[in-house]
Amino acid sequence: MVPHLTTALHGPLLELEQRILDGNTSIERWFRLRWLTHEPPFYCSVDLRNSGFKLAPVDTNLFPGGFNNLSAAFMPLAVQAATAAIEKICPEAKNLVLVPENHTRNKWYLENVATLAAILRQTGLEVRIGSLNPEISGPTELETATGKKLRVEPLKRLGSGSRVGVEGFDPCAILVNNDLSAGIPDILKDVNEQVLLPPLHAGWALRRKSTHFAAYDEVAAEFAQLLQIDPWLVNPYHARCGEIDFQARAGEECLASNVSMLLEKIRVKYLEYDIKDTPYVAVKADAGTYGMGVMMVRDAAEVRDLNRKQRNKMAVVKEGLAVTDVIIQEGVHTVERIEEKAAEPVVYMLDRYVIGGFYRVHGARAADENLNAPGMHFVPLAFEAACTVPDPHASCDAPPNRFYAYGVVARLALAAAGLELERTAPPE
Amino acid sequence: MVPHLTTALHGPLLELEQRILDGNTSIERWFRLRWLTHEPPFYCSVDLRNSGFKLAPVDTNLFPGGFNNLSAAFMPLAVQAATAAIEKICPEAKNLVLVPENHTRNKWYLENVATLAAILRQTGLEVRIGSLNPEISGPTELETATGKKLRVEPLKRLGSGSRVGVEGFDPCAILVNNDLSAGIPDILKDVNEQVLLPPLHAGWALRRKSTHFAAYDEVAAEFAQLLQIDPWLVNPYHARCGEIDFQARAGEECLASNVSMLLEKIRVKYLEYDIKDTPYVAVKADAGTYGMGVMMVRDAAEVRDLNRKQRNKMAVVKEGLAVTDVIIQEGVHTVERIEEKAAEPVVYMLDRYVIGGFYRVHGARAADENLNAPGMHFVPLAFEAACTVPDPHASCDAPPNRFYAYGVVARLALAAAGLELERTAPPE
Repeated sequence: MVPHLTTALHGPLLELEQRILDGNTSIERWFRLRWLTHEPPFYCSVDLRNSGFKLAPVDTNLFPGGFNNLSAAFMPLAVQAATAAIEKICPEAKNLVLVPENHTRNKWYLENVATLAAILRQTGLEVRIGSLNPEISGPTELETATGKKLRVEPLKRLGSGSRVGVEGFDPCAILVNNDLSAGIPDILKDVNEQVLLPPLHAGWALRRKSTHFAAYDEVAAEFAQLLQIDPWLVNPYHARCGEIDFQARAGEECLASNVSMLLEKIRVKYLEYDIKDTPYVAVKADAGTYGMGVMMVRDAAEVRDLNRKQRNKMAVVKEGLAVTDVIIQEGVHTVERIEEKAAEPVVYMLDRYVIGGFYRVHGARAADENLNAPGMHFVPLAFEAACTVPDPHASCDAPPNRFYAYGVVARLALAAAGLELERTAPPE
Repeated sequence: MVPHLTTALHGPLLELEQRILDGNTSIERWFRLRWLTHEPPFYCSVDLRNSGFKLAPVDTNLFPGGFNNLSAAFMPLAVQAATAAIEKICPEAKNLVLVPENHTRNKWYLENVATLAAILRQTGLEVRIGSLNPEISGPTELETATGKKLRVEPLKRLGSGSRVGVEGFDPCAILVNNDLSAGIPDILKDVNEQVLLPPLHAGWALRRKSTHFAAYDEVAAEFAQLLQIDPWLVNPYHARCGEIDFQARAGEECLASNVSMLLEKIRVKYLEYDIKDTPYVAVKADAGTYGMGVMMVRDAAEVRDLNRKQRNKMAVVKEGLAVTDVIIQEGVHTVERIEEKAAEPVVYMLDRYVIGGFYRVHGARAADENLNAPGMHFVPLAFEAACTVPDPHASCDAPPNRFYAYGVVARLALAAAGLELERTAPPE
C-alpha cells in the first residue's frame, strides 16, 4: 500500500522519530489539552520536508485543494472528522455552501471540489456549490477530471441581504475553498449570521506566512520542551523583509542581510549536528500560494544580482498580486524519494484530525528545490495507519511510525494556524 | 479486501438498501440530531442478520470483546472516534483504567483487551488494566494470543476509599469490558467521582434484552417513517415471558403461546412479501450473553416438550445465572455466506461512529441457526469504506453500499441502546 521510500536516514532523525514514538501518549494528551483552549481551523494541509536530520513544515495551506489526491480507503476518516467538526459549528445544520476557486477549466481542481462536497454530504448536509466567478451567472454543470458532474451556482445575497447562499438555498455555514488571493469579495463581507469557514482573515488578502511561522515558533518551542529536543529539529529558521519592490530593486539590502544572517545560523547548526549539506534558504512572497514567487538562494549575493526574468518571477503571485513583503525561510532538503524522484509529504487535516496525505513528487527537481511547480505529480498514500497510529512493535522507520511523526509535525503547524487566526482576528 | 459474498439477494432488500443509499444525507442528519438529545453508549457491537428481505439487529452488546478481530487498517477510525468520546467525558484526563472479564486464560480475549488498550493509549491516555478477578492479587503479566505482554493489576479503592483505580494510579474514567453477568461487584458500587463507562446498569446483572428491543421498536419506527418503509424490514418481532423455570417446567404456557403468536405474525408478513422461508423464532435468556441460553423454535409444540438436556441448556447462562425471563425474537435467516459457510456481520461502534466490523462464520450451522457458538470463526472485514461511506456511483450491492446499510442499521441499535440506558438509569 505504501510506496517504497529510499529514505537515507541519519542518526538525528531516527532519534527524533524515536522520541516522537516514545512520547506518543503524552503528545496526544498535549494536543488534546491544546484544542481545549485553541480551536484548530476547519481544514488545513501542510507541506513537510524530511531532510534526514530534521522534519519540518514549510507551508501551511488553509484552503486545501487536492482532497481528490487522498487515498479513497481513508475517506471514512475524513467523514468522521468532518462530522465532529460540523457538530461543533452548526449541530442542527442542514445546508452548507462550498465556495470554490474561480477556475472552471481545471478539471482536477473540480475533482477536489467534488470530493470535498462528497465528504460533507456524508455528514448529513445538503451541499451546494456557490461560485464567486462572475462568469457563473446561473446554474452551470461542469465536468470533473473523472467525468463527475458538478453543479455550480452563483453565490448570492438572500432575502433582505444579510445572508448569503445560492438561489433557494440558505446555508448555516459557508465553507470557503478559495484562498481569496484576489481580495475579500464584497459578497462575503459583513456576513454575521452565518459561519464562514475558515474566517476571511485566513485568506491571502490578509494572511501572512511570517505571522504563521511566528506562531509556529511558539508551538514548536512548547513541543520541543515536552519532548526535550532542540526545537530546530522541527522548525526552520525564518525572517522577513517588508517594503520590497523587485522591479525597482528596492529592499534588496534587507533581503541580502537577512539571507546572509539565516545562512550563517544554519551553518552553525549544521556544524553542531555534523551535517555536510549546503545550507540554503527559500525566499517566498509573504502572502500567496501555488508555489509562485519562490526562489531558492545559497548565497546572499544571489539576491543582489537578480536578472530581469528572476525579478519578474518574484514580483507577482496569483491573481497578479504585487509582492512587497517576503519571508526568508531555512531550506530543508528532502531525502524522500519515490522511484528516484524527489518527494515531499503533504498531510491533510480536518478539524483536529489527520485524515491522510500524499507525496508530492517532481522528477525534474532536486532535493533542495521547490517541488510545488508544473511537472509535479501526486502519489496518494494509504498513509498506513493514517499518520495517527504508531506501531510500538515495529521499528522506528517502519511506514506507520514514519507517518505518525509526519502527523505529529503537521499538527504542530495546524496548532500554529489556530493561534495565528486567533491573533489576527479583526475586533468583533 | 472484502471477501466475496454469495449473497442471494431478493427484491425487497435491494429496495431497502436503495432507500438507505438514497436517503444517505437525511439519514446522517437524522442521526446527528438524535445524538444532540440522546447520548450513545461509549461502545457497542451489534450482530446483524441479513435475510435477503430484511436487515436487522439480533443482539446488541454493550461490553464488546473482539476488537482484535477488526481490520488493522481501520484502527485510525477507532482512535479518532475514541478521541472524540474521551474529549466529551474527561477532556483533561490523563489516566484510564480498563476492567476486563475475569478469564485470564482466554488468550484471544486478552488480545482484545490489548487492542482496546492500544486504541485508548493513542488518544493520549495512560491506560492500566484493573481486574476484578480475586486471583489477581498483585501485578501479573499475562500473554495474549499473539504473544503481547499484558500487565494486569487488582482493581482497588484508592486513598480515602471514594475513588477506584490500581495501585498508585487514579483514573478519570473506568472503562468496563466485563459484562457484569456475575452481578455488580462491591468495588464498583457508589463510585461517584469517576466516570464509569458504560454505566453499571448496562451490565447483565440489571440489563434486559426485552428493554433494549422495546427501545429499538421506537427507533426503528421513527427511522421507517423517515425512509417511508415498513419498520418490519429492519426490526424483528419480539415478545417476552417472565417467571420461567425451565427445570420445574414453569412458564411453558406463556412461552408456547408467545411463540405461536410470533410465528403467526411472521407468517402474515411472509405472505405479504411472498417469502418462502420457514418462519422460526429464537428463545433467549432475557439477561445474558455469549450465545448461551438460546434455542431456535419452528413450532410452539417444541417448547412444550423440552427434554432434560434442552431444559438444562436453557436454565442457566454465563456465571451460572438462572434464567427466569426470556425474550422470544423473530428469527432472521442469514443469506450471507463466506466460502459456503453461514455468516453474519458484526458491526463495532465507538461513541456515535462505526469503526469497523467482521463476519462471524460457522461452518456447521445453518442459515436459521445461532452462529455464536463454539466452532465459529471471524473474518475481519476491511469493511470497505467502513460502513459509513456509500458510493453513489456504484451499484446497490457493491460492497461499500452493502456495508453502508449495515452501518446504518447497526447505529439504529446503538441509538436504541442509548435510549434504553437513559430509561433504566437509577435515580440520581
